[in-house]
Amino acid sequence: MPKAIDFYFDFSSPYAYFAAQKIDDVAMEFGGRDVEWRPFLLGVAMQSTKNQPLAHQPMKGEYCTADWDRLARFMKVPWQLPEKFPIASLAPARAYYWIYDQDKALAKDFAKACFSAYFSGGSDITKPPVVGEIGGALGIDAAELEAAIADNAIKERLKDETLTAIQAGVFGSPFFIVDDEKFWGSDRIWMIKRWLKTGGW
Amino acid sequence: MPKAIDFYFDFSSPYAYFAAQKIDDVAMEFGGRDVEWRPFLLGVAMQSTKNQPLAHQPMKGEYCTADWDRLARFMKVPWQLPEKFPIASLAPARAYYWIYDQDKALAKDFAKACFSAYFSGGSDITKPPVVGEIGGALGIDAAELEAAIADNAIKERLKDETLTAIQAGVFGSPFFIVDDEKFWGSDRIWMIKRWLKTGGW
Repeated sequence: MPKAIDFYFDFSSPYAYFAAQKIDDVAMEFGGRDVEWRPFLLGVAMQSTKNQPLAHQPMKGEYCTADWDRLARFMKVPWQLPEKFPIASLAPARAYYWIYDQDKALAKDFAKACFSAYFSGGSDITKPPVVGEIGGALGIDAAELEAAIADNAIKERLKDETLTAIQAGVFGSPFFIVDDEKFWGSDRIWMIKRWLKTGGW
Repeated sequence: MPKAIDFYFDFSSPYAYFAAQKIDDVAMEFGGRDVEWRPFLLGVAMQSTKNQPLAHQPMKGEYCTADWDRLARFMKVPWQLPEKFPIASLAPARAYYWIYDQDKALAKDFAKACFSAYFSGGSDITKPPVVGEIGGALGIDAAELEAAIADNAIKERLKDETLTAIQAGVFGSPFFIVDDEKFWGSDRIWMIKRWLKTGGW
């Protein structure tokens, strides 16, 4: 089995939500590859690049808001821009790694459920009890999950994952690394397909 | 004939250079439409969005530099990142509008020649004599073109075009407006195709 594709994302990123709908299928169909989902804190990376959240940028914010609606209609994906947006995604990202260390497949299901809860269900995934409930619906012990979010080892883990991402050159969300090749943005999935198919150029 | 597509760009923008290779063909093939090429000063728009040139942003600059090489190889388009980059594109943009007012088709040929001269020929298109020479090769009077670049009316014209672009919501390069629908980036040409084909969604 060839190396998994790294999929870096922040739970607060709409373009990551859209990319998450299809990256696993693309990786498998075009490259026979797994995808490693790697949530990180985009806000920390943005301190390195001196960037601002899209929604906070004049003009660009309005464009992107309309673009998310347009993409959702095109992809026929449930979508509602959350009232609280963007968010600091510490709670779901920490919870993800706690689950991941026990069950990688379950962690991916959990990530998908968080994306849905936030971007189509209007849930406030910054709140540990909400994250606990999302985990609970997947058979995870909600109380344990909530406790994990407050655990120092998991806090450190997310910091490490974020720094590792930045060191790998990740500055946006979604961001993909295929072998050593970087692809930034949900708009580059077409290029990942061709890269996988051809082995690069 | 349906309304032309507006193609806003800065002569200093690599992604605009790549988009310029195909937008006319896409507009004609998928929508039977002309494309109106509208150079503007991206630096002025970036003051509105508080953005920085891609090449000046940590991490993003390195990514984009590699991405331009990759795109050029993929599209089989001549490409060499100019030594002087990015540039203030006043000279070619002013020259464009002076030519445009006399001959729209010639202005487009001139724009293409400027893009090639800068992004594959290593010419410094900030210099009026260089721009004059590019025009001269297309049968334009080089001395008149150089004089036009220094003319107050043309200076005002480019300012007006830039402000009009910003008022229309343009904040990046390339940027396309199809009827009232905005598309930002060379990565969105696929979406323009579908929009033209389907009439939107």
